[in-house]
Amino acid sequence: METVKIGILGLGTVGGGTVNVLQRNADDISRRVGCNIQVVAAAVRDLSGDRICPTDGIDLTDKPQDIINRADVDIVVELIGGDSLAKELVLAAIANGKHVVTANKALIAKYGNEIFAAADKKGVCVAYEAAIAGGIPIVKAMREGLTANKVAWLAGIINGTGNFILTEMRDKGRDFADVLAEAQALGYAEADPEFDVEGIDAAHKLTILASLAFGMPLSFDKCYTEGITKITQQDVTYAEELGYRIKHLGLAVRGESGIELRVHPTLIPEKRLIANVDGVMNAVLVKADAVGPTLYYGPGAGAEPTASAVIADVVDIARTLDGNVEHRVPALAFKTESITEQTVLTSADFETAYYLRLTTEDRPGVMADVTKILADQAISIEAIIQKEPNEDQDATIIMLTHRVIESNMEKAIAELKSQPFLKGDVTRIRVEHLNA
Amino acid sequence: METVKIGILGLGTVGGGTVNVLQRNADDISRRVGCNIQVVAAAVRDLSGDRICPTDGIDLTDKPQDIINRADVDIVVELIGGDSLAKELVLAAIANGKHVVTANKALIAKYGNEIFAAADKKGVCVAYEAAIAGGIPIVKAMREGLTANKVAWLAGIINGTGNFILTEMRDKGRDFADVLAEAQALGYAEADPEFDVEGIDAAHKLTILASLAFGMPLSFDKCYTEGITKITQQDVTYAEELGYRIKHLGLAVRGESGIELRVHPTLIPEKRLIANVDGVMNAVLVKADAVGPTLYYGPGAGAEPTASAVIADVVDIARTLDGNVEHRVPALAFKTESITEQTVLTSADFETAYYLRLTTEDRPGVMADVTKILADQAISIEAIIQKEPNEDQDATIIMLTHRVIESNMEKAIAELKSQPFLKGDVTRIRVEHLNA
Repeated sequence: METVKIGILGLGTVGGGTVNVLQRNADDISRRVGCNIQVVAAAVRDLSGDRICPTDGIDLTDKPQDIINRADVDIVVELIGGDSLAKELVLAAIANGKHVVTANKALIAKYGNEIFAAADKKGVCVAYEAAIAGGIPIVKAMREGLTANKVAWLAGIINGTGNFILTEMRDKGRDFADVLAEAQALGYAEADPEFDVEGIDAAHKLTILASLAFGMPLSFDKCYTEGITKITQQDVTYAEELGYRIKHLGLAVRGESGIELRVHPTLIPEKRLIANVDGVMNAVLVKADAVGPTLYYGPGAGAEPTASAVIADVVDIARTLDGNVEHRVPALAFKTESITEQTVLTSADFETAYYLRLTTEDRPGVMADVTKILADQAISIEAIIQKEPNEDQDATIIMLTHRVIESNMEKAIAELKSQPFLKGDVTRIRVEHLNA
Repeated sequence: METVKIGILGLGTVGGGTVNVLQRNADDISRRVGCNIQVVAAAVRDLSGDRICPTDGIDLTDKPQDIINRADVDIVVELIGGDSLAKELVLAAIANGKHVVTANKALIAKYGNEIFAAADKKGVCVAYEAAIAGGIPIVKAMREGLTANKVAWLAGIINGTGNFILTEMRDKGRDFADVLAEAQALGYAEADPEFDVEGIDAAHKLTILASLAFGMPLSFDKCYTEGITKITQQDVTYAEELGYRIKHLGLAVRGESGIELRVHPTLIPEKRLIANVDGVMNAVLVKADAVGPTLYYGPGAGAEPTASAVIADVVDIARTLDGNVEHRVPALAFKTESITEQTVLTSADFETAYYLRLTTEDRPGVMADVTKILADQAISIEAIIQKEPNEDQDATIIMLTHRVIESNMEKAIAELKSQPFLKGDVTRIRVEHLNA
């Protein structure tokens, strides 16, 4: 039986998991592929460090360039993360005629256009299933499974840490900071949790999903990104009273005037399947013209879920090793020459419904003033909850609006903030009904 | 640009939908594939019949053999359904060296072993994504996306009609017969609804999913099948009281003593995502060793969802037309020579929890007798609800049991039925917790 040889850059959680799964399931994998997959070499930071996997038969090196230069390596698997060294190594591997598999979403979202162009020129594949939603085969589903479709929009819970935090806040009535500290202790969140809770990680993934859906170049710098750090326990509770759940969604929407790329906390009706995706799990809901709505759910991170996606990519490449380059599935779903620039809207042009929460003096006429300010911006109200004044005689008003252009909402909020009756800030969270 | 030519057998709902989607999205599809997909001919029953699609440029014939014999057809798409004529035509197409795409689950479940062997011998592909769960790319996910994994079990809602009926019974308190009549009027259910409500259609699909998961030959005749015709409004309501929903599940489970292949009404905890898959939608939950649980959700039938899957298969084949045959994704996920017979258990060996409902005389000692009969078969009880006697002085007892071997349960039920206090039948519905 033929053997396909891979070299791994980085033997940490995902690298170690990949070696473990390849060894444990070697028999089933070769029964499927008809060839053996062998890890011949791996680059590690510290040659004497502890490993989560056996390393017998694997040449270890602390010089990643060694892996890229090995003549016997067919596929280089990049699992070191970050985006400067990784970019350099991936481009060097491509230049050496190696196929590349990576789990690095930052790398693809930011430098994918350059990397795929280099790979096209050299006739090699760059595969990245593990970069989005961990073990869920979402890249494969969108690139190949939905190939007959025009995608209208997609919505994803694509950051497990953020979803864990929001789920705990809802289920246990806990505060953001408290749950974040626990997530850090459990190892879900990094010591610097900014990538997760500010939505940067989700924006990387959304950028890639949007290119797969719409045939446009990767446009990370045009992605609107808002984190979940300002979501309070109150908002989670009021959302629930209104029949909604708050999720940190990535949304890519094809509109008449352009593409919306946005990551932000979002109220979703609790009856939607995606509103019930809890804890560290991920899900992507895709609305496409022929198939209608499809949803893909699974673990978004972790050693073996990510390894599952890495190995699927390795196998896909192994199957095409002596095939016609022209017939490969294109890296971004569309053939390189067919990828076209599209207008990506700025947030002023987004159109969504809103959840608004404001604290005001408790005196007659306030509600009339608030509703007039909204009406002046053509914002109509779907539901209002008014809470009894607290001991300071502050009244809380919670509203759901119908859909409105974001620039109008910004004007209304500015006007509300200038009112003497307003106490504190105006909380606004977008609402999406996700009628799919 | 190269053109791949297809001939369609059957231009009804799915065939017409396929032509419509291919025409509407021709541009996006060729941007992805790098070639054109052209329908050159179609076989129809009645040349003068009405069509849901334009037929300009398509040679129509009422002799399906004409399609198979055309030299310019690369791929034959079989959409006539049924399993005798379809089998004959598919085998003839293969013999003529044509690749085949089919949406025919009965055909694959019953004759797939023979068909795939013929295709292997001839070096052509037989693809059937549309046969299972309509537009959901579940075959692709299992064959390619989860290729690194050993599948432990899978559970699917894979018949939309049955799920529509159960959803209506729960949401609107309606009776089985009433909803079935509506489903027939809406066109969801056939005039002869046996395939749907008796679970035969689901068993076809489960048979295929099990082979994809476990690398075993298609074993439709070993699939245990129980319909939903005996589910009453009472059971739906009591299940809900207990925190469960009743779904018609297909389950394929890899156990130590063999494979369980079973289709039956099943109580699932209402918190599970799959318990919230409602109406005509389908979903498949797969538990695999590396990735963990993944779930795939979408429309299980309909013209364009099915067309979406048919076209995805056509495109996959188009990509490999001049590739190395050895490197293609195998029809049943595992290479033909690696598919191995496995023990498929009979229902006596299944192990599940149970929901039991019985009506008894309302007199002291009955509950003690009932629980003793269960205890004698090593059946332990998780929950009991006893309902107040009705006007006839009948008492209703509803129980949830812990997991038990089915043969023990059968003995206990036989013993219960022999008791003088029992009125009517014992209703038993299996319970699966689907801890994934």
